[in-house]
Amino acid sequence: MISQTAEYALRAVVWLASRPDEAFTAQALAVHIHVPAGYLAKVMNALVRARLLVSQRGRNGGFRLRDEASGISVLDIVDAVDPIRRIQSCPLGLTTHGLRLCSLHRRLDQAVAMVRKAFGGTTVGALLAESSSSPILCERRARRPARRAPARSTGR
Amino acid sequence: MISQTAEYALRAVVWLASRPDEAFTAQALAVHIHVPAGYLAKVMNALVRARLLVSQRGRNGGFRLRDEASGISVLDIVDAVDPIRRIQSCPLGLTTHGLRLCSLHRRLDQAVAMVRKAFGGTTVGALLAESSSSPILCERRARRPARRAPARSTGR
Repeated sequence: MISQTAEYALRAVVWLASRPDEAFTAQALAVHIHVPAGYLAKVMNALVRARLLVSQRGRNGGFRLRDEASGISVLDIVDAVDPIRRIQSCPLGLTTHGLRLCSLHRRLDQAVAMVRKAFGGTTVGALLAESSSSPILCERRARRPARRAPARSTGR
Repeated sequence: MISQTAEYALRAVVWLASRPDEAFTAQALAVHIHVPAGYLAKVMNALVRARLLVSQRGRNGGFRLRDEASGISVLDIVDAVDPIRRIQSCPLGLTTHGLRLCSLHRRLDQAVAMVRKAFGGTTVGALLAESSSSPILCERRARRPARRAPARSTGR
C-alpha cells in the first residue's frame, strides 16, 4: 500500500532513531536494513532535503535524525519520499467535475484521509516505545561487533 | 495509494455497473473511462478470471458484470487485479522474527487492515446509489450518440 521507497525510508529513520548516539553512512545503514545501498543513498538525500535527517561529513560522519523521534511521524517520512496524496479534484482533469469528486474517487479519497490520519498519529518515538514487546525493526544482525561498524561516531 | 491498475479496474466495473443493459468491448470502454485500450484489455481479462465480469462474444458482445453491483465490493475489484496485502510475517524473511512483526510493520499492517475493511464495506451498488448527489464516475462524455457506440447490445 505504501511504495518500496517509503518502506525503505521508514526503515532508515526507525533504525537511526533507535541508535541516536551514532551516525551511519548510507552504505553501513543499507546492510542493517536490507536495502540496496545505491537506492538508499537517494532516499537518505530526500530525507535530508525534507529536514528529517542531517548529514555530517568527516571521519565519524553519516546520517542522524535532526530532531527527537517523538517529533517525527510515519506520515512525515512517507510524505518526504513518496507522498500518499489526497484526491482534491477530478484526477482525470474533467472540467465538468471540477472540484466535485465522483462517488468512486470520493470513497478512495476517504481511504487516503484515513491512512494519512493513522500515519500522522504514529510517531517514530511511539514505535520505539512499543519495541519492548516486539522487535522495533526487521533488521539484520551485524556480523561483526557494532564497535567496529563503519562511520560510527563515539561521542554525540 | 492504490495502483493505476486497480484504479482502472474500479473505473471499468463502476461504468459497467451503471449501464447493466449494455455490453462494452475494452476498446469502447477505454474511451469512456480514459484508459489506454491495450492496458484495459489486460485488466478486463483479470476481472473475468476473478469472476467479476463475463465476456460475451459476437456482434453485440463485450464485457458485463457477472452479478449484481450490490454484491461487488471495491475490495473485490482491487484484489482481483492488484491486491492490497496484509503483512502476515516479517516481509524481510528474517527467521528470528518469524510470524512476529516488528513495531513498524505491525503499524503498517494495521493501516492495510483498515483500508481493506473500508473497501470491503463499500459495494459498487453503494457507489451507484450515491450518484444522485455527484457524478458516479469521472467519465468522458461520448462525442457521438451512445446508440452508435461499438459493441453495444440492444436487449439484455
